[in-house]
Amino acid sequence: MSGNSFGDALKITSFGESHGVALGCVLDGVPAEIRISAAEIQLELNRRRPGQSKITSPRDEKDRVEILSGIFDGRTLGTPIALLIRNSDARSADYSKIKNIFRPGHADFAWEKKFGLRDFRGGGRSSGRETVARVAAGAVARKILDSRKIKITAFAKEIAGIVGEKFDPKNISKNLVRAADSAAAKKMESAIIAAKNSGDSVGGVIEIRIQKCPAGLGAPVFDKISARLGAALFSIGGVKAVEFGAGFGAAKLRGSEMNLRGGGIAGGITDGSEIVVRLAVRPTASISLPQKAVDSRGKIRKIQISGRHDPCLVPRIIPVAEAMVALVLADFLLASRLDRI
Amino acid sequence: MSGNSFGDALKITSFGESHGVALGCVLDGVPAEIRISAAEIQLELNRRRPGQSKITSPRDEKDRVEILSGIFDGRTLGTPIALLIRNSDARSADYSKIKNIFRPGHADFAWEKKFGLRDFRGGGRSSGRETVARVAAGAVARKILDSRKIKITAFAKEIAGIVGEKFDPKNISKNLVRAADSAAAKKMESAIIAAKNSGDSVGGVIEIRIQKCPAGLGAPVFDKISARLGAALFSIGGVKAVEFGAGFGAAKLRGSEMNLRGGGIAGGITDGSEIVVRLAVRPTASISLPQKAVDSRGKIRKIQISGRHDPCLVPRIIPVAEAMVALVLADFLLASRLDRI
Amino acid sequence: MSGNSFGDALKITSFGESHGVALGCVLDGVPAEIRISAAEIQLELNRRRPGQSKITSPRDEKDRVEILSGIFDGRTLGTPIALLIRNSDARSADYSKIKNIFRPGHADFAWEKKFGLRDFRGGGRSSGRETVARVAAGAVARKILDSRKIKITAFAKEIAGIVGEKFDPKNISKNLVRAADSAAAKKMESAIIAAKNSGDSVGGVIEIRIQKCPAGLGAPVFDKISARLGAALFSIGGVKAVEFGAGFGAAKLRGSEMNLRGGGIAGGITDGSEIVVRLAVRPTASISLPQKAVDSRGKIRKIQISGRHDPCLVPRIIPVAEAMVALVLADFLLASRLDRI
Amino acid sequence: MSGNSFGDALKITSFGESHGVALGCVLDGVPAEIRISAAEIQLELNRRRPGQSKITSPRDEKDRVEILSGIFDGRTLGTPIALLIRNSDARSADYSKIKNIFRPGHADFAWEKKFGLRDFRGGGRSSGRETVARVAAGAVARKILDSRKIKITAFAKEIAGIVGEKFDPKNISKNLVRAADSAAAKKMESAIIAAKNSGDSVGGVIEIRIQKCPAGLGAPVFDKISARLGAALFSIGGVKAVEFGAGFGAAKLRGSEMNLRGGGIAGGITDGSEIVVRLAVRPTASISLPQKAVDSRGKIRKIQISGRHDPCLVPRIIPVAEAMVALVLADFLLASRLDRI
Repeated sequence: MSGNSFGDALKITSFGESHGVALGCVLDGVPAEIRISAAEIQLELNRRRPGQSKITSPRDEKDRVEILSGIFDGRTLGTPIALLIRNSDARSADYSKIKNIFRPGHADFAWEKKFGLRDFRGGGRSSGRETVARVAAGAVARKILDSRKIKITAFAKEIAGIVGEKFDPKNISKNLVRAADSAAAKKMESAIIAAKNSGDSVGGVIEIRIQKCPAGLGAPVFDKISARLGAALFSIGGVKAVEFGAGFGAAKLRGSEMNLRGGGIAGGITDGSEIVVRLAVRPTASISLPQKAVDSRGKIRKIQISGRHDPCLVPRIIPVAEAMVALVLADFLLASRLDRI
Repeated sequence: MSGNSFGDALKITSFGESHGVALGCVLDGVPAEIRISAAEIQLELNRRRPGQSKITSPRDEKDRVEILSGIFDGRTLGTPIALLIRNSDARSADYSKIKNIFRPGHADFAWEKKFGLRDFRGGGRSSGRETVARVAAGAVARKILDSRKIKITAFAKEIAGIVGEKFDPKNISKNLVRAADSAAAKKMESAIIAAKNSGDSVGGVIEIRIQKCPAGLGAPVFDKISARLGAALFSIGGVKAVEFGAGFGAAKLRGSEMNLRGGGIAGGITDGSEIVVRLAVRPTASISLPQKAVDSRGKIRKIQISGRHDPCLVPRIIPVAEAMVALVLADFLLASRLDRI
Repeated sequence: MSGNSFGDALKITSFGESHGVALGCVLDGVPAEIRISAAEIQLELNRRRPGQSKITSPRDEKDRVEILSGIFDGRTLGTPIALLIRNSDARSADYSKIKNIFRPGHADFAWEKKFGLRDFRGGGRSSGRETVARVAAGAVARKILDSRKIKITAFAKEIAGIVGEKFDPKNISKNLVRAADSAAAKKMESAIIAAKNSGDSVGGVIEIRIQKCPAGLGAPVFDKISARLGAALFSIGGVKAVEFGAGFGAAKLRGSEMNLRGGGIAGGITDGSEIVVRLAVRPTASISLPQKAVDSRGKIRKIQISGRHDPCLVPRIIPVAEAMVALVLADFLLASRLDRI
Repeated sequence: MSGNSFGDALKITSFGESHGVALGCVLDGVPAEIRISAAEIQLELNRRRPGQSKITSPRDEKDRVEILSGIFDGRTLGTPIALLIRNSDARSADYSKIKNIFRPGHADFAWEKKFGLRDFRGGGRSSGRETVARVAAGAVARKILDSRKIKITAFAKEIAGIVGEKFDPKNISKNLVRAADSAAAKKMESAIIAAKNSGDSVGGVIEIRIQKCPAGLGAPVFDKISARLGAALFSIGGVKAVEFGAGFGAAKLRGSEMNLRGGGIAGGITDGSEIVVRLAVRPTASISLPQKAVDSRGKIRKIQISGRHDPCLVPRIIPVAEAMVALVLADFLLASRLDRI
């Protein structure tokens, strides 16, 4: 279990460290004859990239994608699609002074325990920056879903305790936090800026709605669609909870009530109706407030993290979550061709 | 993605329909030289089997396990371990009258959409009965964990809205609902019986505590330990939500608060401290109250499900959840041997 | 790499020891709605079973298959098909006296080095008896190939140096050695009996012809059809060489000559014309002549193997080779549904 | 089965078209803490690159490798190692005139049947150029083998019917054909030049010797070391036959003779003694002699292939074969850590 591949019929293998040469992925299993351009992939990357607004990390990465293989004359060849994004604004010097300190809430300690060494520059591969490869691959996966008009819409449902009750998908691209409720969006934005100004960070909840998904996707018993979506979403750094439909609320319902609700999934297979998933995102671990940390010799030390970070991960995880959902659904959509003789 | 295998270094492949000849699994990747007996596996199966108390399904399955291969002279051979559990109390006649009706809250419709046909007897492979194979395999996985003293404890945290606040693991085996709080246990039991008597069912929340898990387990980026545990738990029928540590509560915390909590997992890798996971279990879909259902010709019909069902799935899912966690941890424990040269 | 699974879209997971309780397999990925009966599987098993003629091992195994799951009402369900064959004529006592001796030409030593222990009764899982599971699964795979009229014909091309030059497929089932040349068949049979009478064994070459295979099967670059067929055939115990078309003869040809031949495979993908594969089978390692062997303490000792063995493996490997080819082709046939959008 | 990944504990995923932007691979599963430099990888690539001598293709590719990830400060991180080789001397114009013709002996027709379209420039991904990624990955795999002193030596055993009888490994790097017999090497070289001058090509046999391989590698029953090596070698374009030890000769031996030979593999597991593998390489399909070919409309046409090709593939396949063997052995060496509790 090397951990850098995801998917079966459609498989992404990703690589790259936050402050290394580049990040990227190989996407294998994409059928031939799909029309796709680098611009379409770039569009999704632009939604995820840092430096896009006052509430995201100021690290200035253009995240330009280069298609290395698998696409010829505007169409997929049926061969692996390799996508490359070079790091350009990596300031490794920011990290040399915390080289021997395990940052609180980060993977530093666990990573060193596992591998015996680590690329301490910006967390290396434990950085959220690895998700750039997922978004690029997800853009290709979406082209597979387009053939069936399947639609994935993710938005900020809650940030810093502020809940958006309204759902108007047209709002999502009109505010910095990507909420579907524009009144709540303003409050969320203010809360993020306040947290940032106080050297702290906030968390939130992302909701994803999957529409026009055909019935019959999902592979019982272990690869239920909820199991694969669950894995996909929990594989995103900072995700602490995932729920489908009624979710934790289902624990309090009676069978006679629950059976009246749909939920889009039955026995781990889609039933053709809308699927709603929610995920909880923790507040960013990298904060500029002084904190106590353990160093490599086991001593408690005071640290203050400089670097350039997002005061709230929710807005930038939204395109990542969509990409992961797209990869899962495209995988199942392809796999469903094998269901019957 | 055939969906009937789970795991990498340690892989379970399961088979069987609820009212077919038998259920079972092949567990591959078990190292040689582990001492194990059929009795140890039977012990776990007895915790899951139906007919064990007044709050479980009265279907009288002894669930006797037969070891078909992989163990010789009391020790594992390093070859695949095949485990067989025959169905003995399958009353298929109960189901013939609902052969052409899709039961509400069940996989019937989605399954038929996927495969074009289904074993309608007791839901076939969509039945929770398939989990018997998981529990058998989990008992073997636990033997791998024993070599490192890793401990998995699952219990009913909440049933029908009644929350157990106390955690005394000694209580768990002393009450029918498997709660760790004996006062809450009594109320939970009453609530289940009340629901059953009214022809309805209730849901709940299971909490799992993983102790003495070594640091360094988990495979970034896609096979984070949370991603694999998430998949494992969402693969159990009826699970609608999974959260780790602060879970959905993390969405409301600040980074400065969240960083003070541990949680046992950082960057998807264990850090050596306790891991807490909670899962929400929906109320049983099979209830005896009259319901409306769609039939294979698209007509709405009234049905009343007879069969023999659990009014609450929580108590019986507990050993299943433990088994799945054991399979995931044993897989990672073995895989961790490959982390360094 | 646990080694007991083979295939991708169609995957067999096999289990069982030669003198254990049973052998069998789980075949996952079989599409729903295929008509199949136990009798069809049994037919193939009968071709492989011991005790079928004077030139095969006298071990009297009926090899009755029991379908445990995945088939309901005569049709596949799309769920895993588990097949069970119990051992009935296992004479373990034959082996207790060579418990601590590594038989020459056998896996005993290598196996013990790997796992630290072994089931010494009849070689445990290193016995050719494990192939019973492959033949059972292959019978199911053939049903997938039938939908496209793909035909696999294997026969004894050479035994004990006697080469069959003629190819008349009707002959194959009419002689004990399964040669396609009836004159050569008689000589091959005599050579086998002579070897047996002298306490020795002989080897041979199997040729497989694959007809009506559609163009486009095979997955470049690593899963070329030759690579998968090569793996499938080399995974059969006793196979020491595999060649396609011109095979080793190709080394002596010029490009201008070679380009005129077809061969059925180009760039690892089928081109629609006939595919010819040949495999060399070593003489049976178990012979009754006295031999020198090493024991577990490193001492050279004289042994004489009793047990019940085949003086030539070729006739019984023929159905096994066909089964493996069927599994590979069915896997690719299913996978080819994913080639284009 | 997407076909672009190979290996289990150690997995290469390769990408790239012959005349596209670049070729490369992601190697996942490399343990942390291995010292390695780009220069070590380059050394192997230089052995494979075109333009290295008068008997290889004059295409002038420097094949400079760029390490994109997974190595930091001269040591592996335990994260995926991405390796990139850009195409620089791709003359696509050579191919535009044969865009609609299926070259004899090539994958053109089969590829188009499979995917419905193809990158006709130099065969796209069906070109032998894809093996550059394998050689780069193999160089990393060798570092894993170095920890156990395992040695892989491949050489030209036969070219154009000329067989090298002597085995002196020191000779291999001293002649252009990479024979271990220097007298035969001269004749082989002359034969290749003669074929080239006549617009034709020749084939040959490569022998590989694996020394100091520990006992216990290989995973019965399907992933026997012979099965995995067989797959690895048959996955190289142009390989038509593979044999181990006595190979096809084994078909003519008696059991009493065969049991006296070792062969390094028993029951699919290494026994610690030397392993000898031979593979037959067909004569290059691309020749400059005029040939008949089928075009996309089914018409027979005369073609003359220009492009730049190797008159014999043997010398350049040698490092590729070594790389594939290294990948297989390193995979098994890592996997063997899981054999016992």
